[in-house]
Amino acid sequence: MQGLRRIVLDVLKTHEPKLTDLALKLCNLEGVDGVNITVHEIDKSTENIKITIEGNMLNYEEIRKVVESMNGVIHSIDEVAAGKKIINEVKTPQDRKYF
Amino acid sequence: MQGLRRIVLDVLKTHEPKLTDLALKLCNLEGVDGVNITVHEIDKSTENIKITIEGNMLNYEEIRKVVESMNGVIHSIDEVAAGKKIINEVKTPQDRKYF
Amino acid sequence: MQGLRRIVLDVLKTHEPKLTDLALKLCNLEGVDGVNITVHEIDKSTENIKITIEGNMLNYEEIRKVVESMNGVIHSIDEVAAGKKIINEVKTPQDRKYF
Amino acid sequence: MQGLRRIVLDVLKTHEPKLTDLALKLCNLEGVDGVNITVHEIDKSTENIKITIEGNMLNYEEIRKVVESMNGVIHSIDEVAAGKKIINEVKTPQDRKYF
Amino acid sequence: MQGLRRIVLDVLKTHEPKLTDLALKLCNLEGVDGVNITVHEIDKSTENIKITIEGNMLNYEEIRKVVESMNGVIHSIDEVAAGKKIINEVKTPQDRKYF
Amino acid sequence: MQGLRRIVLDVLKTHEPKLTDLALKLCNLEGVDGVNITVHEIDKSTENIKITIEGNMLNYEEIRKVVESMNGVIHSIDEVAAGKKIINEVKTPQDRKYF
Amino acid sequence: MQGLRRIVLDVLKTHEPKLTDLALKLCNLEGVDGVNITVHEIDKSTENIKITIEGNMLNYEEIRKVVESMNGVIHSIDEVAAGKKIINEVKTPQDRKYF
Repeated sequence: MQGLRRIVLDVLKTHEPKLTDLALKLCNLEGVDGVNITVHEIDKSTENIKITIEGNMLNYEEIRKVVESMNGVIHSIDEVAAGKKIINEVKTPQDRKYF
Repeated sequence: MQGLRRIVLDVLKTHEPKLTDLALKLCNLEGVDGVNITVHEIDKSTENIKITIEGNMLNYEEIRKVVESMNGVIHSIDEVAAGKKIINEVKTPQDRKYF
Repeated sequence: MQGLRRIVLDVLKTHEPKLTDLALKLCNLEGVDGVNITVHEIDKSTENIKITIEGNMLNYEEIRKVVESMNGVIHSIDEVAAGKKIINEVKTPQDRKYF
Repeated sequence: MQGLRRIVLDVLKTHEPKLTDLALKLCNLEGVDGVNITVHEIDKSTENIKITIEGNMLNYEEIRKVVESMNGVIHSIDEVAAGKKIINEVKTPQDRKYF
Repeated sequence: MQGLRRIVLDVLKTHEPKLTDLALKLCNLEGVDGVNITVHEIDKSTENIKITIEGNMLNYEEIRKVVESMNGVIHSIDEVAAGKKIINEVKTPQDRKYF
Repeated sequence: MQGLRRIVLDVLKTHEPKLTDLALKLCNLEGVDGVNITVHEIDKSTENIKITIEGNMLNYEEIRKVVESMNGVIHSIDEVAAGKKIINEVKTPQDRKYF
Repeated sequence: MQGLRRIVLDVLKTHEPKLTDLALKLCNLEGVDGVNITVHEIDKSTENIKITIEGNMLNYEEIRKVVESMNGVIHSIDEVAAGKKIINEVKTPQDRKYF
């Protein structure tokens, strides 16, 4: 049985706890190889971040629980990869339809 | 006999079931090496997604059935690759005709 | 004697038969290593596609016959590569003359 | 236990001490493999710099202390990576929401 | 003695003979490793093409004769590489002078 | 003890001595693996250049002395890398703040 | 003693002798590994070209003599690399100052 290899999340969180603490909690979940967090928008009391998680057999529910325990709310799942290997999105001429 | 190696689909689906569940179902089909799903448009009740599937001897009908069983409709096949190896689209000076 | 290694075709076809069937037919021609088909324009009854074929000793006439047998018309050959190895187009400062 | 692998900081500092001295101090902290500092804005008395630090088990508090001891103030953490390997941010079609 | 490794030509030709035939003739010249032809402009009776040829000890005069024997006229040589290895053009900040 | 691995300098110099002579002097300093100099602006009597130096345990003061001995003035240090390996600047979504 | 590894020249020359002859002469100078010449501007009687030369211990004076013997004038040296290895220019946020 193959599982989730990459999840990209759009998350809104309060400034505390810090990004470094959130990244450490996420990267120590079972099956996680690495976590990347980038800041997209900073407001007075909140920040909009993008979380990229890669690994084997990622467990979305556990990831969601960690994010929420750190004062974060998942707005959307923006990308998911699953299977024997990580496949990237392929750009096609039809992508421009959305612009 | 050579078969399908990559299929890129433009799909409209309801928010449920989640992308993670759709990716897991697709990556466990026979011949599938990996699945990538990205979100292109989110509306109140639907989302427009792009599904990229790579593998060997991909079965389009089985893929379509899984997508439809998860409340998805395939709008179009945007790219297909087949053969001994995966060939990418080659950009040529004539591509600008369409812009 | 060296032969054709890559052919890129601009093709107009009816929606049926499907891209997956066209790709399968082309990738099983002699000398073909891989086929990529991308959709550039979709109309009510036709679609404009780009076909990229790579291999050894490609036979253009056989490729043309397959395309036509699948309700396709070749509008133009946009790129050709031939020889011991596949050479890509090299961008030069003079390319801007055409823009 | 996995730790921090990359930290990207937005820092405001006085012109003295020099960037070369700040880089040397940071790269000799425990766990640091490499440090990169680029200048983004130069004013009469201050400069806005971006510090990228990569390594194993990076200690954010030690990094912050070094930056502050060199007349720097951390404005924000712009990116963090953690885990067994360094994962880069994945671009998705949803990134344009912020532009 | 070192020789020519790459020649890029801007050529105007009639539609016949086909690009595939021109590519085959060129790739069978002595010293040629590979040939790439892309179409830049198509008119009613002519087409403007770019020919990229790579190999060892390329013979420009023989290439010119083949092009002319296939109803082509060389408008200009846009790039030449010579020597023990193929060097690509290096982009420098001064390139913008020409734009 | 880890040292400086890369220094990028914004320098104003007179046209003489030539760039080739400046590059030769810099690349023969202790610890220098390679030097790259590009011209950004040319005026009647001066030129604005960017010097990129990579190596191990680079000595900024020696570099500055060579630049000044060749009629150059360092306007600013634009980038510095230090440590066991050369880390490049990582682009983040926050970089656009400066544009 | 380390020497010059790459020289990029902005040259104005008459149409004759041809680029192929200039490239052949340059690539047979001592220390030259490869030569690339691209055309940037073509006028009625002259052409503006960029010459990129890579090798070991390049001799600028010999290169200049060959260029002048082929009816060329060096307008400027746009890039120079020297040392044990060829270092490319590193882009920094400060580059935009010149645009």
